[in-house]
Amino acid sequence: MMGSMGRWQGGAAERLRDAALGLFLTQGYDKTTVAEIAAAAGLTERTFFRHFADKREVLFLGQEEFERVFLTALPDGSDEPMAMIAGALDAAVVLFPEERRPWSRARRSVIAANLALRERELLKMSSLAIALTRALSARGVDAASAALAAETGVTVLRTSLALWVAEGERRTFQEIQNAVLARLQALLVP
Amino acid sequence: MMGSMGRWQGGAAERLRDAALGLFLTQGYDKTTVAEIAAAAGLTERTFFRHFADKREVLFLGQEEFERVFLTALPDGSDEPMAMIAGALDAAVVLFPEERRPWSRARRSVIAANLALRERELLKMSSLAIALTRALSARGVDAASAALAAETGVTVLRTSLALWVAEGERRTFQEIQNAVLARLQALLVP
Repeated sequence: MMGSMGRWQGGAAERLRDAALGLFLTQGYDKTTVAEIAAAAGLTERTFFRHFADKREVLFLGQEEFERVFLTALPDGSDEPMAMIAGALDAAVVLFPEERRPWSRARRSVIAANLALRERELLKMSSLAIALTRALSARGVDAASAALAAETGVTVLRTSLALWVAEGERRTFQEIQNAVLARLQALLVP
Repeated sequence: MMGSMGRWQGGAAERLRDAALGLFLTQGYDKTTVAEIAAAAGLTERTFFRHFADKREVLFLGQEEFERVFLTALPDGSDEPMAMIAGALDAAVVLFPEERRPWSRARRSVIAANLALRERELLKMSSLAIALTRALSARGVDAASAALAAETGVTVLRTSLALWVAEGERRTFQEIQNAVLARLQALLVP
């Protein structure tokens, strides 16, 4: 079907992901089978399982790359821990360009409606916090400060994401994240 | 067996929980069946499923009561959001008395070793953050501040718990949590 080729840029994994999100939105996550996802992407179930362990994983494509963006951007150990985390958050706004907002909004609505997906999303964010905690520790930050700074950074990220995909929100991700971090500082030291 | 009756205080759910934790520690979570848990508690599988939906839930007994302690202790809306959260955290130290520390340490080691349990623990903490966010919103706090204060409170709680059950840790939960909150404030506004 030539008409839909434009949607299917990228490799098989991206095609499967986009096909899955479309099906999850229209017929629900629970009612969608791997066979349907593969068919909608013009691929086989075998190809699906070459890329994903199960149906749940399809909305978590690229988690390693996601974490790598934060870890690569983390400044060296000359800054305060929270300044390092802010530096990583600042650089990672490239993950959330304007053209991605509708997709992120759709993904979020599917995840919010399903407990297994919510758990998986929590695990994704927890995994990022653990990776950042380790990276701060490797830069000489004590364990408690590393964990607190990393978890706080992930709180800022999650809160910013929730605001960014809210209906009617016009600010860029960068603007939102800056405002959230400033708000958090004001809350902690009123 | 008269000798082990002392361990089995409380109702069937508590007996099942303690029996499950013992089996998870000695033979592993994956290898333990509901039938074994019920037998170790001197109860039937049918009784198990009257109290728990599945094996995973057995380490999350009392989650409603857990959340209720925080929500009941949340001050009324006359304070700043983070002061309200600190008030709730302060009151909830009753959940972590000294005599509970060995049990909490054992529970944590089982959870750390199993992905499904880690996800469930994340969901428990996320659920607390959502409940606190709603309670702050109901007290007139704006949505972003409510979410940030609640998530930050849960970060303080989780970090404090991790320190409290660490081998060799001697400080009380209250002492640890006070130190963690102070550390976070120092991190955010260096």
